Amino acid sequence: MVSLSQQLFLGIDGGGSKCKARLENAQGELLGEGLSGPANPLRGIEQTTTSILDATQQALAEAGLNDASLAHIYAGIGLAGVNIPAYRQLVQNWQHPFAQMYVATDLHIACLGAHDGGDGAVIIAGTGSSGVSVIQGEYFEMGGHGFGVGDKGSGAWLGLTAVSKTLEALDDIGISTPLVEKVMQHLQVDCAHTLVEQITGKSPAFFAKLSPVVVEMANQQDPLALSIVRDGADYLNRMARRLLANKPPRFSMIGGVAQHIQKWMDDEVTQRISPTIHPPEIGAILLARSLV
Amino acid sequence: MVSLSQQLFLGIDGGGSKCKARLENAQGELLGEGLSGPANPLRGIEQTTTSILDATQQALAEAGLNDASLAHIYAGIGLAGVNIPAYRQLVQNWQHPFAQMYVATDLHIACLGAHDGGDGAVIIAGTGSSGVSVIQGEYFEMGGHGFGVGDKGSGAWLGLTAVSKTLEALDDIGISTPLVEKVMQHLQVDCAHTLVEQITGKSPAFFAKLSPVVVEMANQQDPLALSIVRDGADYLNRMARRLLANKPPRFSMIGGVAQHIQKWMDDEVTQRISPTIHPPEIGAILLARSLV
Repeated sequence: MVSLSQQLFLGIDGGGSKCKARLENAQGELLGEGLSGPANPLRGIEQTTTSILDATQQALAEAGLNDASLAHIYAGIGLAGVNIPAYRQLVQNWQHPFAQMYVATDLHIACLGAHDGGDGAVIIAGTGSSGVSVIQGEYFEMGGHGFGVGDKGSGAWLGLTAVSKTLEALDDIGISTPLVEKVMQHLQVDCAHTLVEQITGKSPAFFAKLSPVVVEMANQQDPLALSIVRDGADYLNRMARRLLANKPPRFSMIGGVAQHIQKWMDDEVTQRISPTIHPPEIGAILLARSLV
Repeated sequence: MVSLSQQLFLGIDGGGSKCKARLENAQGELLGEGLSGPANPLRGIEQTTTSILDATQQALAEAGLNDASLAHIYAGIGLAGVNIPAYRQLVQNWQHPFAQMYVATDLHIACLGAHDGGDGAVIIAGTGSSGVSVIQGEYFEMGGHGFGVGDKGSGAWLGLTAVSKTLEALDDIGISTPLVEKVMQHLQVDCAHTLVEQITGKSPAFFAKLSPVVVEMANQQDPLALSIVRDGADYLNRMARRLLANKPPRFSMIGGVAQHIQKWMDDEVTQRISPTIHPPEIGAILLARSLV
């Protein structure tokens, strides 16, 4: 049993592109932080636990602590994909080195962080997209069904859709705008064949790297880019309305795409947006503190 | 050198779901046929060559011949993906057992077969979708960019889109029609989580198996199914118009989805459709005969 004064609290925010760690002492003081690679159980449990430990060890090092302190850690771990029972089980089966591990969805910890542990709703639009509300203990989530089939309005979706529309333009059966040239420049390809070679088998993170190009061109009124961001914004509008129907006291949007795509969302939705109070990794710590 | 009378001609039609072989003697008489598993270099060169040899050995066995006859075979081999230089090279590098091997796209052999070796254009709408025209030696192809990014109007695309729309309906942000229930029945799932579990990482062929459900429900006027098949038909219309702009003397549509989706395509396109004269594996033999 770890004595109260020796307790350490770790918050992990794992995602499709990166994994953040935050280490606090029992008094809530920041001791160290860490940043590592992708931690998405849908894309491999090995990589997920490796990224979690990597980020954790960085945070311990910054705190001047070593692996002996792992056994003093109460870890709140937020991960994409653990809404799916089989993937949650994979994570729960992990022989972790912590005193205790509390697993929640990336959505859940984002919501806890955004509203300082209070009730509310959140849409995440980063590499993927999804929504959650936590109201009077009632946990509700939507979206986040995965690259290619769901996660509309996300960075990966914006990139994939831009590639798809670029291929239609190169086939001379879709509209061709400057976006097409920008996409090919970004991917360093000169025709449909090399484009297909370049993208085949690539990860959501790869496609998400294209999303700033789409947003930039939409801001320049490129008609094809505008049609893509508006289609994504429409999906996020529908998700937001469904979450707001649950009457959350607060509603926030987070993620790398969220801030950029809001200008194409409906005013009636965006005027309901409150700023996030804390980032997701603090939400993960709030979760661990509430469950110890 | 194989004497003319000993020459055997093999036609291979490889695709995402299956590989067909047809063996003829020098006089054009059918000696044997074979049918094996997927042969798509984009999804693995090992599986591709294994499927080709498997189907070939079936055809030899049916002809009462053994492996010693492999060295007498002039093989025309049609494969998806070999429009992409890297994948064509993989196939060309294969240490094949034939006297000679002639590699072409699945589109090319389909077009040769459909028009008895003459000029024309073809749209394939099966597991994937793509188009080709061969006119006065000019080879032109389009589409077929791959599952998830292209191949609209194909069986895999119809299935994937139905799953995507089903997930929106389950999230209560998309229209819900009887198709939603049919999709879940087909996949034997009862909620969004189990649905996502069931489909994650699945192949185009897996999604293509859902396409008859979508077509059946569209025939029953299901609004969601209708919107999906109409969207797919719109893409095939655009592809057909682009091919017809090349002024092919004949135009055909082939593949398991083609016959079903034509009723939602434009009359001005479908009235240009001629029946195919031969199947693709005979097109592959016509290719080999023309190049020996």
